[in-house]
Amino acid sequence: MNQIITFGEVLMRISPLGNRKFVQSNSVEFYFGGTEVNVGISIANFGGNVKHISCISNDFIGDTAISYLNKFDLDTSAIVRSGRPLGVYFLEVGAVMRASSISYNRSHSSFSEIVPSMVNWEKSLENGKWFHWTGITPALNKGSKDTLLEGLKLARKQGMTVSADPTYRSGLWKYGEDAKEVLSELINYSTIFIGGINEINELLGTDFSYSNEDFIEASKQLIEKFPSIEKVFDKIRTSINSSWHKIRARMWNGKEFKETQDLDITHIVDRIGTGDAFAAGLIHGLQNFDDFKAMQFASAACAIKHTYLGDVNYANEKDVMTILDGNTTGRLNR
Amino acid sequence: MNQIITFGEVLMRISPLGNRKFVQSNSVEFYFGGTEVNVGISIANFGGNVKHISCISNDFIGDTAISYLNKFDLDTSAIVRSGRPLGVYFLEVGAVMRASSISYNRSHSSFSEIVPSMVNWEKSLENGKWFHWTGITPALNKGSKDTLLEGLKLARKQGMTVSADPTYRSGLWKYGEDAKEVLSELINYSTIFIGGINEINELLGTDFSYSNEDFIEASKQLIEKFPSIEKVFDKIRTSINSSWHKIRARMWNGKEFKETQDLDITHIVDRIGTGDAFAAGLIHGLQNFDDFKAMQFASAACAIKHTYLGDVNYANEKDVMTILDGNTTGRLNR
Amino acid sequence: MNQIITFGEVLMRISPLGNRKFVQSNSVEFYFGGTEVNVGISIANFGGNVKHISCISNDFIGDTAISYLNKFDLDTSAIVRSGRPLGVYFLEVGAVMRASSISYNRSHSSFSEIVPSMVNWEKSLENGKWFHWTGITPALNKGSKDTLLEGLKLARKQGMTVSADPTYRSGLWKYGEDAKEVLSELINYSTIFIGGINEINELLGTDFSYSNEDFIEASKQLIEKFPSIEKVFDKIRTSINSSWHKIRARMWNGKEFKETQDLDITHIVDRIGTGDAFAAGLIHGLQNFDDFKAMQFASAACAIKHTYLGDVNYANEKDVMTILDGNTTGRLNR
Amino acid sequence: MNQIITFGEVLMRISPLGNRKFVQSNSVEFYFGGTEVNVGISIANFGGNVKHISCISNDFIGDTAISYLNKFDLDTSAIVRSGRPLGVYFLEVGAVMRASSISYNRSHSSFSEIVPSMVNWEKSLENGKWFHWTGITPALNKGSKDTLLEGLKLARKQGMTVSADPTYRSGLWKYGEDAKEVLSELINYSTIFIGGINEINELLGTDFSYSNEDFIEASKQLIEKFPSIEKVFDKIRTSINSSWHKIRARMWNGKEFKETQDLDITHIVDRIGTGDAFAAGLIHGLQNFDDFKAMQFASAACAIKHTYLGDVNYANEKDVMTILDGNTTGRLNR
Amino acid sequence: MNQIITFGEVLMRISPLGNRKFVQSNSVEFYFGGTEVNVGISIANFGGNVKHISCISNDFIGDTAISYLNKFDLDTSAIVRSGRPLGVYFLEVGAVMRASSISYNRSHSSFSEIVPSMVNWEKSLENGKWFHWTGITPALNKGSKDTLLEGLKLARKQGMTVSADPTYRSGLWKYGEDAKEVLSELINYSTIFIGGINEINELLGTDFSYSNEDFIEASKQLIEKFPSIEKVFDKIRTSINSSWHKIRARMWNGKEFKETQDLDITHIVDRIGTGDAFAAGLIHGLQNFDDFKAMQFASAACAIKHTYLGDVNYANEKDVMTILDGNTTGRLNR
Amino acid sequence: MNQIITFGEVLMRISPLGNRKFVQSNSVEFYFGGTEVNVGISIANFGGNVKHISCISNDFIGDTAISYLNKFDLDTSAIVRSGRPLGVYFLEVGAVMRASSISYNRSHSSFSEIVPSMVNWEKSLENGKWFHWTGITPALNKGSKDTLLEGLKLARKQGMTVSADPTYRSGLWKYGEDAKEVLSELINYSTIFIGGINEINELLGTDFSYSNEDFIEASKQLIEKFPSIEKVFDKIRTSINSSWHKIRARMWNGKEFKETQDLDITHIVDRIGTGDAFAAGLIHGLQNFDDFKAMQFASAACAIKHTYLGDVNYANEKDVMTILDGNTTGRLNR
Repeated sequence: MNQIITFGEVLMRISPLGNRKFVQSNSVEFYFGGTEVNVGISIANFGGNVKHISCISNDFIGDTAISYLNKFDLDTSAIVRSGRPLGVYFLEVGAVMRASSISYNRSHSSFSEIVPSMVNWEKSLENGKWFHWTGITPALNKGSKDTLLEGLKLARKQGMTVSADPTYRSGLWKYGEDAKEVLSELINYSTIFIGGINEINELLGTDFSYSNEDFIEASKQLIEKFPSIEKVFDKIRTSINSSWHKIRARMWNGKEFKETQDLDITHIVDRIGTGDAFAAGLIHGLQNFDDFKAMQFASAACAIKHTYLGDVNYANEKDVMTILDGNTTGRLNR
Repeated sequence: MNQIITFGEVLMRISPLGNRKFVQSNSVEFYFGGTEVNVGISIANFGGNVKHISCISNDFIGDTAISYLNKFDLDTSAIVRSGRPLGVYFLEVGAVMRASSISYNRSHSSFSEIVPSMVNWEKSLENGKWFHWTGITPALNKGSKDTLLEGLKLARKQGMTVSADPTYRSGLWKYGEDAKEVLSELINYSTIFIGGINEINELLGTDFSYSNEDFIEASKQLIEKFPSIEKVFDKIRTSINSSWHKIRARMWNGKEFKETQDLDITHIVDRIGTGDAFAAGLIHGLQNFDDFKAMQFASAACAIKHTYLGDVNYANEKDVMTILDGNTTGRLNR
Repeated sequence: MNQIITFGEVLMRISPLGNRKFVQSNSVEFYFGGTEVNVGISIANFGGNVKHISCISNDFIGDTAISYLNKFDLDTSAIVRSGRPLGVYFLEVGAVMRASSISYNRSHSSFSEIVPSMVNWEKSLENGKWFHWTGITPALNKGSKDTLLEGLKLARKQGMTVSADPTYRSGLWKYGEDAKEVLSELINYSTIFIGGINEINELLGTDFSYSNEDFIEASKQLIEKFPSIEKVFDKIRTSINSSWHKIRARMWNGKEFKETQDLDITHIVDRIGTGDAFAAGLIHGLQNFDDFKAMQFASAACAIKHTYLGDVNYANEKDVMTILDGNTTGRLNR
Repeated sequence: MNQIITFGEVLMRISPLGNRKFVQSNSVEFYFGGTEVNVGISIANFGGNVKHISCISNDFIGDTAISYLNKFDLDTSAIVRSGRPLGVYFLEVGAVMRASSISYNRSHSSFSEIVPSMVNWEKSLENGKWFHWTGITPALNKGSKDTLLEGLKLARKQGMTVSADPTYRSGLWKYGEDAKEVLSELINYSTIFIGGINEINELLGTDFSYSNEDFIEASKQLIEKFPSIEKVFDKIRTSINSSWHKIRARMWNGKEFKETQDLDITHIVDRIGTGDAFAAGLIHGLQNFDDFKAMQFASAACAIKHTYLGDVNYANEKDVMTILDGNTTGRLNR
Repeated sequence: MNQIITFGEVLMRISPLGNRKFVQSNSVEFYFGGTEVNVGISIANFGGNVKHISCISNDFIGDTAISYLNKFDLDTSAIVRSGRPLGVYFLEVGAVMRASSISYNRSHSSFSEIVPSMVNWEKSLENGKWFHWTGITPALNKGSKDTLLEGLKLARKQGMTVSADPTYRSGLWKYGEDAKEVLSELINYSTIFIGGINEINELLGTDFSYSNEDFIEASKQLIEKFPSIEKVFDKIRTSINSSWHKIRARMWNGKEFKETQDLDITHIVDRIGTGDAFAAGLIHGLQNFDDFKAMQFASAACAIKHTYLGDVNYANEKDVMTILDGNTTGRLNR
Repeated sequence: MNQIITFGEVLMRISPLGNRKFVQSNSVEFYFGGTEVNVGISIANFGGNVKHISCISNDFIGDTAISYLNKFDLDTSAIVRSGRPLGVYFLEVGAVMRASSISYNRSHSSFSEIVPSMVNWEKSLENGKWFHWTGITPALNKGSKDTLLEGLKLARKQGMTVSADPTYRSGLWKYGEDAKEVLSELINYSTIFIGGINEINELLGTDFSYSNEDFIEASKQLIEKFPSIEKVFDKIRTSINSSWHKIRARMWNGKEFKETQDLDITHIVDRIGTGDAFAAGLIHGLQNFDDFKAMQFASAACAIKHTYLGDVNYANEKDVMTILDGNTTGRLNR
């Protein structure tokens, strides 16, 4: 009864080395990622027991993806296979004032054809303690939305904690349903809200500012409208440029507001998946620490993810704790 | 009035270095290819004036693909851009008794949404002398088939030579039309047939063997059924294993049968695109030499392609002529 | 009750790219291997349920090694960790008349300090059906020999099949016991003998030649001396040079002698681990086919391993079956 | 009548990966560059119609160079070929307080043997609107100086805009003519001056300081002495160290002085060619915007070039505009 | 009589590219290093005549190591070879708040079996002027400590200058002797002390703080207890994070205290061996400059080492002097 | 008095990985080579004491070249430095029927400006036993020819053995002297002739065929015309294609004719420098074995060089002896 469940698409990421563009060189590297599986892998690296549920292509690329998840010791037994190809995204990494760019090839991927009948939720959740979902899955198509909804309903019925990261990405949502409506329905089955002013304004139709005062008021209204939500966690990124960010977090847990200090990420290695590292840190933290320390753990996890290449956070619990304990000078470990 | 026209999908090929599998390493290389554009690039390398017509994604991957065609000085002015991603294929290169494997992600690619209204055939063919098509384009979907058919009709009306490489690949042809029927219609607008017993049997419903006698008889029946066809060229590959092939060719030009000797390719570097190199050699040869020498040129072009990594044949006319002149020992050029 | 158990050292292999020497370039690649774990991974790739038991360093190199085994979905739950470093070997790959060279750094590795108390054999073998060991493990030191012996005793007590690959490597065996004596004791707990004339002569003190007649007689005498042995399988390698080998196999199963035909490996990619691929093919084959087909499967598995870089055989059952079915020309899989 | 003409040497740049020295590794990368062709390629990337005129080696390295220019869709039809090798430069990239170092092999390159008779200026300039030259070309030898002079005379006769970047590099100028005299003659055929206090002091024999007041006065005196010059643009680089620069620009357009704000380049990827990116931005900007916005565009173009590896600026007009619009935080483009 | 002698272990360093972890990629690079040989190579790069004495494996890895030292023109004639493997260390390079990590495989290396009889000190020191040792060598085992002690005694007897870098690393010192006692004995044969408050407190059993006042007092007490010591040099590192350090130095030469200004290393390429670069700069500086300039040279050498990948400092004397002369902006050298 | 002297240009070789062309990828590798230094390095690898004399550029590329020679422990003390760049050659490696191609950039290299006054021959030859020269050096320009001639005269005066490899390469010899005349003069100072029918016909103006009978007669006439020559050695290469050669050798030592058997090089890694490996094997062999065994050693050295990437032969004496002893199957060395 201690399994964390993540459900979502696994994508193959392909990118040139360093800050090169595709047009400059034909040497590239690939990694696997996807917001939910990034969360799952990161929690597994913290020591959690994680099952990832997805639909993956039935070819050597799909085999490679599953082998990649196995590497991190994820439970892949509930993954189904499809004749369609794995989703792919291409990434060109920017620097300083040059933005990174992503191009997706995911609209007809193996995951996009998932439908509720392909997942046996009873069996999949039988050891489940926590269910994490994001706004990407319901944005892909009706099948993935319906499948997720079915899973969430069962998860709540079993009393599982449900964390929602309802990122709204307007480039998706092409299948004909209304994002706000769908997300609202899904949030009704969730207990932890990971998101900020943008997401709340989107859901409530409000126009709160980024101030702490507004954040508190917005959180209160969110909880009023979606009473299953108990706590709201918001990560704040200050971008100096593509290579230099600062990260802090704040929360309203229904009772009190707290905020962490900025962590200064002076030399970013890879920013993809840093939001997922925050969510993973939070999920791990809320199971082991009080709310404030969980949020500090999440911030530190998010910060250290910026130093790993690829979508996933390789830090283990000790690596993150070192930062929490104030050791941010990177002293050599022998 | 000397332009060679090729029309078809441009794919991105992604493969690990050497004989590695994807599961072994995350370092990969990409190239661009596609049977028709391979033919076009190869002819350009022989000195031909080539226009390639296609539909390519409107992102940095598409920009990279067009930049790749520009490198070879192809006329890319008739290429249209699409919001869909470029088709991709993944390749694992085998060795000895291990076969190479390909996995495609092309079914919803940018090219697959091409429809006749997207190509201005009048303008595109205004300097056209030769049109080359293959059986892949009509196999993809109705739009690409219709677009091709429209082009072929105009090409023939203008008296252009039309070469057909009606490869039948059963894994395609998902859009509901009958391969044999469609290919037959397209061959009626063609003058040069590049294909062997398998393709002829498929089209005629016959069961000829691979013997030279049967090839001659099959070619005669083919020409009888498709009277626009003037000449039939067949490339014969003898595979010792994945790393070692032999190549020869034979022809029936309506008057006489001729056959070349085997070229022994003892250490294959890359076999992808070698059939396209044969077609390109033939198209270039038939414009410059007699039929037999054209076929010899095509065989030598096919053979030397096995020594270049990637889909395209980097050999220029002199490189191929050297082999035709019997210099197959690879003496160092200083 | 269907688990295959392998027990032995996991080594990190480090080698330059292609045929380079260390002195030529500072770019190298690493893989993990070791004769027993190679067998285990190969069987897992054929679809078997495999548990590998070992002692691995308690640092990020050890973490990487375990992650590598997880990739292939091996059961790593019985692996113990040690403060000593993982064993390493350096490989320079030869070509033609240049031999490949290996230099080991394994004498004080994490595995070398294993002792019986570190393995809970009861628990480890509770689902065991087959136990595979090789002559490397008892050659390392007394602790690894004793641990193996304890495992073998229990395996036989539970009626498991035990396959022995008693390779004798004179560069090892430094800890003071007699190789012949130790190996003889271990073979008394084994039922399948994977080895040839050299190994039999070593064990029996005989001087049989490589002829089939001698092989039959030698096998009979072996079985007479070690009555637990039921079947003897011998792989024969004919080396034209470092880059070109031929492989065949022969067997005496107590009732009949059979021999396979040579498989011609004209372009070797990597010969390390090909003997392990044979053993794995045999273990998988004997559980699924008759003796002769099992040996054919093992020969084909051994042959195809020569086409994969690294120590392990990436072929799955279908890849090997293709060769068994006579398809050795490496036709492209689309 | 809208073609931008650039004329100058194309060099092959060879450098180790990252901050390595040649003595550390034998893996290197090559790019092509040269101050004038860098300007040409950058303008082509902004959407301009660019013809580059040069003399390039008649071997596979020269073929590769021309293929490289074709990639960016430059008009290469006026390039002539030579039996001499292409010029080469070797680059070791520094970091922090370690300077980057360049070693040239260009003194007997293919370009160095160009003479006026090798370029058909009438034909080459027939669609010309703008001609850009730099102080490198006349510094190489008499032939290249004379060829340039002939081109400039015709350009002015046709009323083309002529931009001069009269960089004075003392390591060149070995062929016996006086730099100041030659440059003065060439500037008499130019209308836009891209250079700062150093270049003006060199030409006028003055000793102005770097202050804005001196810059204005120096510009006035320059225009007085060279009345064809209409506008003076100066780029100012503040180097914190090899890895961290700031860039701003100022101008005197005969009527008013303007200055941009510093752009902070905290993590330089590659500083080679950033001055050329400024010139290209200016040439593109002056054709499309007012003088001040042109200079802002040039500064932003210069700044973003620091984020691309290689000599050329891969930014398109939109990439630069984004920075002009104040978006310097490098937000991820999906 | 001008040879600098260094004595110590040569290690092979293996690490992934950039900031990758071993678990992310199987492409790695190797370098050779070791604190004393790093000092020797750096001095050779400054133009010194250096002999390194060590014991190195008798295999192709050892051959590669010796070839590496030859590259820098070190005198390797006194190196002995051993049947044991070369020591190895694995490095994962961190960034920002992520620390770098090292895992050693050195406890049974070729160097660890050195004993006094393997080094002919008379012959080895016959042209010796300076002997440098560190606290690593006596920490490895009794043989290496005894061999060092014998060398130091002879060196002092011959009147050589002896510099001591008595780094105390608690992870070593496993062979049973007391670090403080052993180091004290060795320091009695030394004249230059390179170390800071930590080392002095360790040796004197004091608890001085890092203040300059305490440093002076500590140095005085050190010299009182170890009267052979003439001068004390201390390097001070301020770590902002793993990617950004500042370096300064201070000294007490028995007569006066001096301190340098911070050098700001905003983008670290590789921090391994920077302390050795300081020691080498000092040894070279004290032979050529006054004490303060020697310390400034050492600081600049230390700082610039942070910009070279690998363990050794590639800077020559002129590179360091450039920084001493205040040129820290990294202006391009053409 | 045991030093082997080699004198000639050191070139930097730059080539893409594997069989790639420059136009395919911007990743390349560099090596150093040059026919005479290749001979020198190979002899050093056999254990010889070798001094290489040359003129090398005074930049970081020249530093890297000297560091490369130091790696092999060559005596580089007589090398002079020049302001001109090091000679470069670009190599594209062919396969099967595709020839490899080389493009040179050497005509104004650092070595090409060598003149007799730059080499102190008295000092350079003071420990000399053997002097090796080739036809490349006198072909470059008058200065290098004169310098060589001066060295040869002194070498003969001191009674040194002089081996001549008078390769005639028509692409060189641009400085105005007659190749036949110059080579004849130089051969008069030589004692060992390494060359075949082509070279002899060139020198004698004869037209001998490749038959053994003609070889004997040609050798006799050569010795008659150049009485200092004592022995003639000829290497015969049979090229099946670029990837597969056979090598044998024959000799006339004034008394008897001998011939070796073909060595079959089925998978060539790199053929550059294989002739130099033959010469080096011969020079080493003639100092240690009888004439026939020396020639066998040379043939085996030539053959094994085909398996090493780069210009130089990494084989040591034992590696070559293994082949001489008939071990050509490449058995793994553990």
